[in-house]
Amino acid sequence: MTVLAIDLGGTRIKMGVIENGAVIRQRQSDARSGERLADRAPEIEASLKDLLNSANRSVSNCAGVGVSSTGLVDRERNRVLSTNKKYEDAPDFDFNQWADRAFGLGCKVENDAHAALLGEWRYGAGRGANNLVMLTLGTGIGSSVVLNGKALRGKNGQAGLLGGHIVVDPWGDRCTCPGVGCAEAQASTWALPGRIARHPKFHLSRLKEYSNPDFKTLFQLANEGDEAAVEIADYCVRVWGAVAVSMIHLFAPEKIILGGGVMKGAAAVLPPIQKMVKEHAWISWEGVDITIADHLESASLLGMAALFESDVEFI
Amino acid sequence: MTVLAIDLGGTRIKMGVIENGAVIRQRQSDARSGERLADRAPEIEASLKDLLNSANRSVSNCAGVGVSSTGLVDRERNRVLSTNKKYEDAPDFDFNQWADRAFGLGCKVENDAHAALLGEWRYGAGRGANNLVMLTLGTGIGSSVVLNGKALRGKNGQAGLLGGHIVVDPWGDRCTCPGVGCAEAQASTWALPGRIARHPKFHLSRLKEYSNPDFKTLFQLANEGDEAAVEIADYCVRVWGAVAVSMIHLFAPEKIILGGGVMKGAAAVLPPIQKMVKEHAWISWEGVDITIADHLESASLLGMAALFESDVEFI
Repeated sequence: MTVLAIDLGGTRIKMGVIENGAVIRQRQSDARSGERLADRAPEIEASLKDLLNSANRSVSNCAGVGVSSTGLVDRERNRVLSTNKKYEDAPDFDFNQWADRAFGLGCKVENDAHAALLGEWRYGAGRGANNLVMLTLGTGIGSSVVLNGKALRGKNGQAGLLGGHIVVDPWGDRCTCPGVGCAEAQASTWALPGRIARHPKFHLSRLKEYSNPDFKTLFQLANEGDEAAVEIADYCVRVWGAVAVSMIHLFAPEKIILGGGVMKGAAAVLPPIQKMVKEHAWISWEGVDITIADHLESASLLGMAALFESDVEFI
Repeated sequence: MTVLAIDLGGTRIKMGVIENGAVIRQRQSDARSGERLADRAPEIEASLKDLLNSANRSVSNCAGVGVSSTGLVDRERNRVLSTNKKYEDAPDFDFNQWADRAFGLGCKVENDAHAALLGEWRYGAGRGANNLVMLTLGTGIGSSVVLNGKALRGKNGQAGLLGGHIVVDPWGDRCTCPGVGCAEAQASTWALPGRIARHPKFHLSRLKEYSNPDFKTLFQLANEGDEAAVEIADYCVRVWGAVAVSMIHLFAPEKIILGGGVMKGAAAVLPPIQKMVKEHAWISWEGVDITIADHLESASLLGMAALFESDVEFI
């Protein structure tokens, strides 16, 4: 089965041709998520047609178009409900109509964190797990849950989704959601430059040489012993560990998969989170395996293909 | 239908005779949870027989014995798995055998927070809700969830249960669970004396007149303008509000029921939590109703009776 997949992320738009659980072509472009999605649609359409051609496939080979999006998504109606300041026109964008007009295909829309978990669960690090949590650490922080072998959705598809908006500091920073002190507001790529700029050792740190520092830069400087970088990295890792512990306490997973762009620096993230979970999680079973995603660059795209399979069950 | 119900709480043991969703007799005694459950069992048996007699019922009227317990519970095997420093012998206690020997009845064992939600969902403030969260604020903090009209349990009955162990301060106080900075470690009845004793204004506060201050005392002194009491009450309410917001983000409830002993001071707790949820929760539906439990003294007992009804579904 072949699926055209699109991931509307906060930093990049990814597009791919997925066949039988593998990416056979993939391309990406800058998100420019401050622009209107309607204005980006022609470029997305052209890119996907290019990718199809280069793979010697045509739309007649395809089961449909899968769109994974940042924000809250109504999976039953294939609409984006709320994007939290990205692609502001997405709630008005008719994905069904667009997919039909551009490709003559049906469409499925899902939240990107839910899609990433589906990709890893069906084709990656989560294969075979009956109780699974995925945390996607990137521009924002997303989460998704498998409970007793079923993909958790609940009301409005929101159950298990907003692990990045667990409040880790009730007196913390204002989030882009209405909340205060959400994990995402304290320790995500969008929140990082603010945290760095306010750090008391900022002016002694090489971090001040970067206009928009990301976690790759942070982990590198921390590795070199830059004090502010070490302290901020420790802070963020501890926040993510706290989210992992909270998710274990609420969803009792056998495994947690860590994905998203931040995990390209897995060496700085994975061991301390594994240690924290081992020390802090209250569990009544053998343990929780904390592991890195198999598909850091394509989990959401793969997940949108998984949605076209008939045997994924939801609760 | 008549059920003998027992609630093994951290502060008190409650016993009751429940008939058709109402408490017809109830009694309680000090938990003395540092003692062995095996040593308390004869007193519990005698009390329940007394209550039955006084209600002119006999064991032949009863569908069974329901035991709600603090800690993690294996509902399928009717065993307590881990009690978090209370009733240390509970994991070795054979409830089935005890109920059979004492009353000639079958037995069901469930976690107390799950039981409290069942009681409110079937016979109280949660009637008719399809997506519901209950937070039980007491000696510890418990939670339980209804998702799409089914009582959430997941692996080992733990899903939705440990909302009190959401980490609200990754650098916070050590919990009685292996965690650090759990909501329960920051703001529960057992944690309150420690928080008070460490408050910088403790020695200026009337709180120092109390050997084991509880939230009733705290709210009363806060009402009278005692500065330390005001600050500690604000702190705890904000922690509970943060837990409510996090639970909304993860379970998308239409309603949150607040129960447990702390809610006897609802005037100090309910309005600020309602305000915080209104301002901080990221939701894609009409709103979340934050309400007080109907059965502050008996929700868990009622819930154990609900478990003997055939139409409660679990996921």
